[in-house]
Amino acid sequence: MDAAANLPREPRTERGRRTQRTILDAAAAEFGDKGFHESSIVSITQRAGVALGSFYTYFESKEALFKALVLDMSEQVRQLALPIVAEARDPVETELSVLTRFLEFAREHSEIYRIIDEAEFVAPEAWRAHYYGGASRIFARLKAAKDRGEITGEVDEIHAWAIIGMNVFLGLRYGVLERDRSPEEVAAIANQLLQRGLR
Amino acid sequence: MDAAANLPREPRTERGRRTQRTILDAAAAEFGDKGFHESSIVSITQRAGVALGSFYTYFESKEALFKALVLDMSEQVRQLALPIVAEARDPVETELSVLTRFLEFAREHSEIYRIIDEAEFVAPEAWRAHYYGGASRIFARLKAAKDRGEITGEVDEIHAWAIIGMNVFLGLRYGVLERDRSPEEVAAIANQLLQRGLR
Repeated sequence: MDAAANLPREPRTERGRRTQRTILDAAAAEFGDKGFHESSIVSITQRAGVALGSFYTYFESKEALFKALVLDMSEQVRQLALPIVAEARDPVETELSVLTRFLEFAREHSEIYRIIDEAEFVAPEAWRAHYYGGASRIFARLKAAKDRGEITGEVDEIHAWAIIGMNVFLGLRYGVLERDRSPEEVAAIANQLLQRGLR
Repeated sequence: MDAAANLPREPRTERGRRTQRTILDAAAAEFGDKGFHESSIVSITQRAGVALGSFYTYFESKEALFKALVLDMSEQVRQLALPIVAEARDPVETELSVLTRFLEFAREHSEIYRIIDEAEFVAPEAWRAHYYGGASRIFARLKAAKDRGEITGEVDEIHAWAIIGMNVFLGLRYGVLERDRSPEEVAAIANQLLQRGLR
């Protein structure tokens, strides 16, 4: 499959970029509410307040829009960690801050779970890339900390997959399904496992 | 919603129990291959080698069968840990053994991921119960270890959700998507986080 064929067409103007952003935000709300199959391009353009012709300037189909939205959400999650990682603190503190920020994001954008989970069936390549990308960024952070001497034991991709799994499930439970504990509290208590394990 | 209305009808004979098991196993293969929407009762009864009438003796619809299958898979996962927990070892060792066993199970039954993930959309109550059940069992193990004095720090439901997330994602990555590392190796390396954290 040619991945580039499904990428959104790059807007040439600032106004075009804003329109594309408006469509992606409307798509997140529509797919999050109704799921992929019940969502329609007409309804998305109505939510976005843009003409149907404008839609096809940027996206070639509902499938292409859905894939573009998953890529966009992956990018939003990636961006969350950037200012935290730039501060280059201790690796355990870095993971604490990244998780806190992610839990806040999951509360604000709880539709991301339904969309990413549905991507397993509707856009499996984008779904896979979402998690492989997340795990590889965590692994890169751990390796950098190891190189700086801040982690003495081995670091392995397996640790990164364990951490992404923790984060995803904590966001699901405490950001989406129930919101009975604050992001700060959830992250602080979960981070004890990275500080000292269970003992 | 009346959950009992969708439970499979309890077979009254040993032969009936075997038929119901055969249908559930055929359903796991069918739903795992084709997904819920493309699967059919006729095709499942053909896979199982049972008459269509037999199917309706035990399940009232495709939806009811799917829910019953999710409950059955939750129960299979629950059973995996029972002999390990019965040995009442150190909590970190217990989690190591449970994860190893789960990773072996995920390799042998990789259809479970597609089915549980699709349950979010097709049988959301059973999906939710699957994870809440798993997390509550981990939390119960941690509390029991704390009561025995084997964990000195606090134990919290948040730790349990972190651990179930680790386990689910390690099973996805190393049991289903790629099988480049053995269950023993994955579990041993991931378990370092519970032994001593990242430091």
